[in-house]
Amino acid sequence: VNTVITIGRQFGSGGREFGKRLADELQIPYYDREIMEEIAKRTQLAEDYLNRVVEHRPSYHFPITVGRTLHGVAPDYMIRHQAEIFAEKNRALREMAERSDCVIVGRCADYILREMKPIRIFVYADMDSRIARCRARAEADEGLSDRQMKKRILEVDRNRARYYRYYTGQIWGDRSYYDLCINTTNTDIKAAAHAVAMMIRNQIEE
Amino acid sequence: VNTVITIGRQFGSGGREFGKRLADELQIPYYDREIMEEIAKRTQLAEDYLNRVVEHRPSYHFPITVGRTLHGVAPDYMIRHQAEIFAEKNRALREMAERSDCVIVGRCADYILREMKPIRIFVYADMDSRIARCRARAEADEGLSDRQMKKRILEVDRNRARYYRYYTGQIWGDRSYYDLCINTTNTDIKAAAHAVAMMIRNQIEE
Repeated sequence: VNTVITIGRQFGSGGREFGKRLADELQIPYYDREIMEEIAKRTQLAEDYLNRVVEHRPSYHFPITVGRTLHGVAPDYMIRHQAEIFAEKNRALREMAERSDCVIVGRCADYILREMKPIRIFVYADMDSRIARCRARAEADEGLSDRQMKKRILEVDRNRARYYRYYTGQIWGDRSYYDLCINTTNTDIKAAAHAVAMMIRNQIEE
Repeated sequence: VNTVITIGRQFGSGGREFGKRLADELQIPYYDREIMEEIAKRTQLAEDYLNRVVEHRPSYHFPITVGRTLHGVAPDYMIRHQAEIFAEKNRALREMAERSDCVIVGRCADYILREMKPIRIFVYADMDSRIARCRARAEADEGLSDRQMKKRILEVDRNRARYYRYYTGQIWGDRSYYDLCINTTNTDIKAAAHAVAMMIRNQIEE
């Protein structure tokens, strides 16, 4: 069985960087946006659209709230697409995990691939540190105040939590569902990735 | 400033072993029961008694529940001792942390020494794995059923959580108060301690 490392991450916590560095250290593939690119190819749907449908508001089972989003009501075709795209994504995840050892970020991979006993990591950080990280990486957000930034971060996390809860029945970020939770507030991500890579290498060799 | 590593741990999760190994790897002192031995010397009180008073049920601020324990009502002298012993313990913790780099297990050290910016680790595990670990180490418990064992584990944790909450105002085991949370269910403790030691060494050197 391949070694699959899954990474859940709070928005702005550096989970993506951690995952990339970990994959580099272990010299194995890293899948994040690549997953959606793959599905875009398979379904012939635009990636932007896929992300909106898949990542955000799973709601088609609840008639009362069907398709309600912050921006209004989702169109019917979007709702019809949700389950189908989710299944396609899971097929893609399984193929990736069976192809080789890999690092997969987000997308409920910890749960979808649970039979492969993935090493499940959750990356998080204090709000101040997440705001700082978001500022550092996204020039487009320069106009936002700290309060607006915080609101946006919490909104993304709320969506991730809802999505995760909906498809897994588990609580996103609850430590009992992870093997390792890393707070990047005071921790150097490079050093952490290096150490975790070593730990995983040791465990595989045993 | 010395590097202080504090370890919170669920009962039966192997936190003590992890802390010891980490201290060995880093070649720095490890304080756990040693802290209470120190206080026993200072206060001339028996260590057993100290542990009962300090670790377990801080309650003297709440008149309604004063001294209530599972075994009945704590005597007055015990209640009078609580705050005093807690202060003595904190003095001892500070002295240890100022003397050299060190690993400290439990005793709210993460909070008491917060100005030293300790590296705060929480060690936890699934209930089944904790029951197995308790069985492996304590022959005295052989007579307990899994259900009784689980009850005992939960009771110890409840006391730790209550104690921690009372003296720190923080939630015991809540990941936001830790830099790293390690689930020992599927993780080799030796490999984890080795990796974390390396990570800490790298961060110190930077």
